[in-house]
Amino acid sequence: MERRKFLKGAAIAGTGAALAAPSIVNAQGAKTITIVSTWPRDFPGLGLSAQRLAERIPVVSGGALRTEYFAAGERVGAFDVFDEVASGNSQAYIGAEYYFTGKHPGFAYFTSVPFGMTTPEWNAWIKFKDGQALWDELTDGFGLKTITCGGTGAQAGGWFNKEINSPEDLQGLKMRIPGLGGTVMSKLGVSTVSLPGGQIYENLVSGAVEATEWVGPYNDYFMKFYEAAKYYYTGGMHEPGGGLGFAMNKSWYSTLSDYEIAVIEACCNEEMAAQPEEAAAKNGEYLTRLINEHGVEARQFSEDVWDAFGDAAAEVFEETRAHSPLAAKINDSYQAALREIGAWRAQAEIEFSNQRNRVLGI
Amino acid sequence: MERRKFLKGAAIAGTGAALAAPSIVNAQGAKTITIVSTWPRDFPGLGLSAQRLAERIPVVSGGALRTEYFAAGERVGAFDVFDEVASGNSQAYIGAEYYFTGKHPGFAYFTSVPFGMTTPEWNAWIKFKDGQALWDELTDGFGLKTITCGGTGAQAGGWFNKEINSPEDLQGLKMRIPGLGGTVMSKLGVSTVSLPGGQIYENLVSGAVEATEWVGPYNDYFMKFYEAAKYYYTGGMHEPGGGLGFAMNKSWYSTLSDYEIAVIEACCNEEMAAQPEEAAAKNGEYLTRLINEHGVEARQFSEDVWDAFGDAAAEVFEETRAHSPLAAKINDSYQAALREIGAWRAQAEIEFSNQRNRVLGI
Repeated sequence: MERRKFLKGAAIAGTGAALAAPSIVNAQGAKTITIVSTWPRDFPGLGLSAQRLAERIPVVSGGALRTEYFAAGERVGAFDVFDEVASGNSQAYIGAEYYFTGKHPGFAYFTSVPFGMTTPEWNAWIKFKDGQALWDELTDGFGLKTITCGGTGAQAGGWFNKEINSPEDLQGLKMRIPGLGGTVMSKLGVSTVSLPGGQIYENLVSGAVEATEWVGPYNDYFMKFYEAAKYYYTGGMHEPGGGLGFAMNKSWYSTLSDYEIAVIEACCNEEMAAQPEEAAAKNGEYLTRLINEHGVEARQFSEDVWDAFGDAAAEVFEETRAHSPLAAKINDSYQAALREIGAWRAQAEIEFSNQRNRVLGI
Repeated sequence: MERRKFLKGAAIAGTGAALAAPSIVNAQGAKTITIVSTWPRDFPGLGLSAQRLAERIPVVSGGALRTEYFAAGERVGAFDVFDEVASGNSQAYIGAEYYFTGKHPGFAYFTSVPFGMTTPEWNAWIKFKDGQALWDELTDGFGLKTITCGGTGAQAGGWFNKEINSPEDLQGLKMRIPGLGGTVMSKLGVSTVSLPGGQIYENLVSGAVEATEWVGPYNDYFMKFYEAAKYYYTGGMHEPGGGLGFAMNKSWYSTLSDYEIAVIEACCNEEMAAQPEEAAAKNGEYLTRLINEHGVEARQFSEDVWDAFGDAAAEVFEETRAHSPLAAKINDSYQAALREIGAWRAQAEIEFSNQRNRVLGI
């Protein structure tokens, strides 16, 4: 069934004609990487980014590394990718590490945490401070080696079916919000659930949830949440940045050559940059469309609400620290990096952005 | 002299032992890319980033693409790299496009312009809007094909030997500041000069210039500007982001296979992300060292000064537009992207950063 398997991979990852020339370069001894994902097929932003990465590895390796890509549900369910790869059944998953806080709360820091680092800050921590070493320490116990391969940029605060003017308005609200952001909301009286992307719309329309966060205007536009919740809070505390994971089975990873690892890293680093860039390019346009085409009302949380988020987030971090020495170590490294990197950015890029936006009226 | 040339390249780009294994993959038909750079050898940030890129291409190509890297002055002077590559004498340069505004003012937009886009915004314009197409239109006339390969993040306002409290304090000041940022300063009465990095320190110490911008704390620390100018303005209008160029001779570029282009693109995109991430990781630490070790005083420009910068920048853009239809086309695309992308970011990542920094006291 090898030919059939290859053809299937070619169809899925689009590794057809485009690879005809490059595959000549490294045709001998090609390895196939079976990749499972937490995102639905062709999902704008997240899904298309994962598929783009799966298509890029064969091209940049000149055919030495082939890929088979399975979107959520095509081989295993979205939340089953961790066990699928840890067991060695597939070689890699692309997804959000905070879906796996049930395995260890430290995973939250390798997607995004409330009141945490923005994407440029988080990348600096991962690649040029001790973020990657701590990620390795965490995943090692599960038989995985994970690097970053994407990110959304700062996510919108989310969709609500009523205005949120004070912390009291959050009491009793049913909201889809995973990770530690969800725990923060729980502390403010919100009843939170974690649902994969493909199941949010039906729950929002049925009233099973009354609010949801997802990503930003470009991704959210296609989710049609505006049919059930018209207040869109654009600034959000829960996922200010961070990134996604390309998690490889560690035994398999140990068989890769330095060359193969370099190709995978280069493609993952390239896509880590591209996904938030694409979101930045499209979010402005899609916010305008949401407002003009669908009557969405853009809102910002009040300072009172932000203060309440901040108090709850501080409690969440203390609870996370108490889980284990490793959780405390990850949190403390993260918080120190946030303050050091964030302080410089506050005085430079954020100061500039505020002054420019004030002067230009943006 | 081929062997000697290769050995020289190996020593320069560090393509020694690390490449032994990968080069087996693609040893036949290897091409050598001679790269000249606008940065001094081993220069923190800019120079090390360029060298890292030159070392990475052979690794990711498995030896199919070899590199020889020449820092500023080793083969040609910093400002001579454009003609060196346009003539086909070398295959590529790594540098700041705004050094070449004498060739065409449009080049400024492909490094950074005053009151312009930050790095995440600029990358979005280049890769996911019409930035790259306009860059191609501009470079095509000079026989070059240029893609981005690095960036500094928002640069500090610069080093001054006196406090700048109002626009009047800029009158008559002698400052090293290139590009359109320099033109903005000229309109406010500053006498501006453009000097390559390696010549700034001596001019500042001799008093030939009284102020200079460079990059940010990490890069600036090693330049020792604090010996002659102790006021460090951390927020700056002149280079808010953008990126650097990997400019290839177009005739040579047209001989590359899709595979070779993919490898070069992947490595350039990877380094485009890595350089500002490294700066973000190190600027906070080095700002603290500048203050504690060298008595540097960090400052912010007043709103009056920012308003004056804004008025002057608006004039500069009108003058740039008047140069030619292509200059107008580039400016208008850039300004539209800035407003659309910037408006979303103002409501999301910047709003979050401001609220987080307020709540956490950063």
